[in-house]
Amino acid sequence: MRVALLPGDGIGPEVVAEARRVLDAVTGGALAFDEALIGGAAIDATGTALPDDTTDACRRADAVLLGAVGGPKWDDPLSPVRPEQGLLAIRRALGLFANLRPVAPFPALADASPLKPERLAGVDLLVVRELTGGIYFGVKGTYGQPGRERARDVCSYTTEEIERIVRVGAEMARARRGRLTSVDKANVLETSRLWRRVATRVVAAEFPDVSLEHVLVDACAMHLVTNPARFDVIVTENMFGDILTDEAAVLAGSIGVLPSASLGAPNGVGQTRMGLYEPIHGSAPDLAGRGVANPVGTILSAALLLRHSLGLEREARLVERAVAEALADGARTADLGGSLSTREMTDAVMGRLE
Amino acid sequence: MRVALLPGDGIGPEVVAEARRVLDAVTGGALAFDEALIGGAAIDATGTALPDDTTDACRRADAVLLGAVGGPKWDDPLSPVRPEQGLLAIRRALGLFANLRPVAPFPALADASPLKPERLAGVDLLVVRELTGGIYFGVKGTYGQPGRERARDVCSYTTEEIERIVRVGAEMARARRGRLTSVDKANVLETSRLWRRVATRVVAAEFPDVSLEHVLVDACAMHLVTNPARFDVIVTENMFGDILTDEAAVLAGSIGVLPSASLGAPNGVGQTRMGLYEPIHGSAPDLAGRGVANPVGTILSAALLLRHSLGLEREARLVERAVAEALADGARTADLGGSLSTREMTDAVMGRLE
Ligand SMILES: CC(C)[C@H](C(=O)O)[C@@H](O)C(=O)O
Ligand SMILES: CC(C)[C@H](C(=O)O)[C@@H](O)C(=O)O
Repeated sequence: MRVALLPGDGIGPEVVAEARRVLDAVTGGALAFDEALIGGAAIDATGTALPDDTTDACRRADAVLLGAVGGPKWDDPLSPVRPEQGLLAIRRALGLFANLRPVAPFPALADASPLKPERLAGVDLLVVRELTGGIYFGVKGTYGQPGRERARDVCSYTTEEIERIVRVGAEMARARRGRLTSVDKANVLETSRLWRRVATRVVAAEFPDVSLEHVLVDACAMHLVTNPARFDVIVTENMFGDILTDEAAVLAGSIGVLPSASLGAPNGVGQTRMGLYEPIHGSAPDLAGRGVANPVGTILSAALLLRHSLGLEREARLVERAVAEALADGARTADLGGSLSTREMTDAVMGRLE
Repeated sequence: MRVALLPGDGIGPEVVAEARRVLDAVTGGALAFDEALIGGAAIDATGTALPDDTTDACRRADAVLLGAVGGPKWDDPLSPVRPEQGLLAIRRALGLFANLRPVAPFPALADASPLKPERLAGVDLLVVRELTGGIYFGVKGTYGQPGRERARDVCSYTTEEIERIVRVGAEMARARRGRLTSVDKANVLETSRLWRRVATRVVAAEFPDVSLEHVLVDACAMHLVTNPARFDVIVTENMFGDILTDEAAVLAGSIGVLPSASLGAPNGVGQTRMGLYEPIHGSAPDLAGRGVANPVGTILSAALLLRHSLGLEREARLVERAVAEALADGARTADLGGSLSTREMTDAVMGRLE
């Protein structure tokens, strides 16, 4: 089994190197690794954020582990070549339409949460975000004379795009507590009205054991802060998902410990899918090269990789349990008020791998 | 001076009646009131959520005070006639392009906030949301055969639409702490790239005394929870504003006490503007008709009405101070754990009006 590593920018290379050690250890060296460029590092080397070599390396692999992209050097969102184009392009090229963002705060980190303990208690949610459609990938342009312009972005969804992401959400709900919340803005958007109709039909026809509720995106933004424990699985479209996943992420107290998975269609090998895995944190340029970044988000992303792309559920759980134990025992990098280096934190996890 | 009252549905009529008493008292009976239908009540009486009579009554007035619209009876977002169409249509008909949503938690209500006290300390922010453009009012439609459809919503902004809302944001910042945060998704959307360019130009040219920062919408959704005190004025487009205003609202601990203003262009009378004022809470059908709803959100909306549409700053402050004192002295409706009725809570405010 082959894993493509895309270290990217900033602290990306440091955290990916550590997660690779964990993957090696837990699989007994059974994985082959390929490294390739993405983001700012790729722009500097090749002039584009996603070189063809990188796409090829990903296509040859069973899964991709990514660090982070971006940094002050390439920071202008008005510039024509930008690191995050690499992210958007690889999602599209590999057909990674389902972004999974679990948020289950570690009890040991409750102090770091902005929420009062009674609001945080029992939170264990998963946001499933549509990742290759909607306003992100619609026709866009700016027209007219300077000073009198009109810009447009088209948000568009097909029945089929909605069906396949709702199925992922419902499958995840079935394997968890059986509750699916579909988030839309059906009182304003046509795409949301189609979304709501399709979600209702798919769940009723194919997932009679899953309960479905519809929540408007503005109400969801409220509930995530006031009562996040009410959610099991949330499924939503690309732009809403971008906002809600980040809002949900900060509830846990540290974005340094949260993983993500971006999955494609089932690949015919068991229940596995091609996937790209990355921590939700950014490239943290201020920490880069100092060996102090928190590797936990990337290590937990590697656990998702073992589960969803390699079908190694037992190994995934070993890693997740080792992380939980290390944190419970007080292992902490600087972002969590501790003093462990990136490598020492990884060692703390690896020491608990059985 | 004339105020149009649109009580609407659920608890709307009850809270509007109480806010009217406050307006009467603080202006010494100087205001004339006109009542008109909107929302579900209008649908039941006339078949449409915004009858022409209502639009006319609003056009004749200097300001509009609205209760709430919606309820289980008209709740299906897929139905062709819906209460919230009244809201969207009146915003558009009156050109109310600037939605103001202040969030400054009352110290007396800190216990009710989901945030830890140290995160809530010092929060005093204002979100200025563009209200008549963007994806809300773009071309939309669903095409294709049942089961194989494509839905589309177009998000569009002109230079001029962005200029005028950025000006409102910058004026508000100038009158406060001088800090403006423009929120967009310039790394993905064309409309956001135009937004960012226009915001940068307008603030630099016309508001050299205001500091401007740009924040991506996903990062903003995080900061609002982790460090809301970092914001002074946030200005953003319609859809992002819908989500972020509601996220910001729940930080304060009770959505029953928060007001909003939706403003049009300056009307040539001093610094005043046509405006529609409403509490941010909904129609709360479960509380309707029981006289227990919290009138504070509507009373504070009436204060904004005095300030922004009638130019009565002194009276606006009297009302705001009276509300703060009543809450500090322990006056509470049921939503805040108290036992005062809607009328008694209003009396508690009116008793502190000088
Ligand atoms: C970098 C950006 C284009 C990206 C997105 O908006 O999808 C990021 O915010 C994310 O959520 O992975
Ligand atoms: C009812 C709905 C159309 C409306 C909106 O999205 O603008 C509401 O959520 C609001 O924020 O006033």
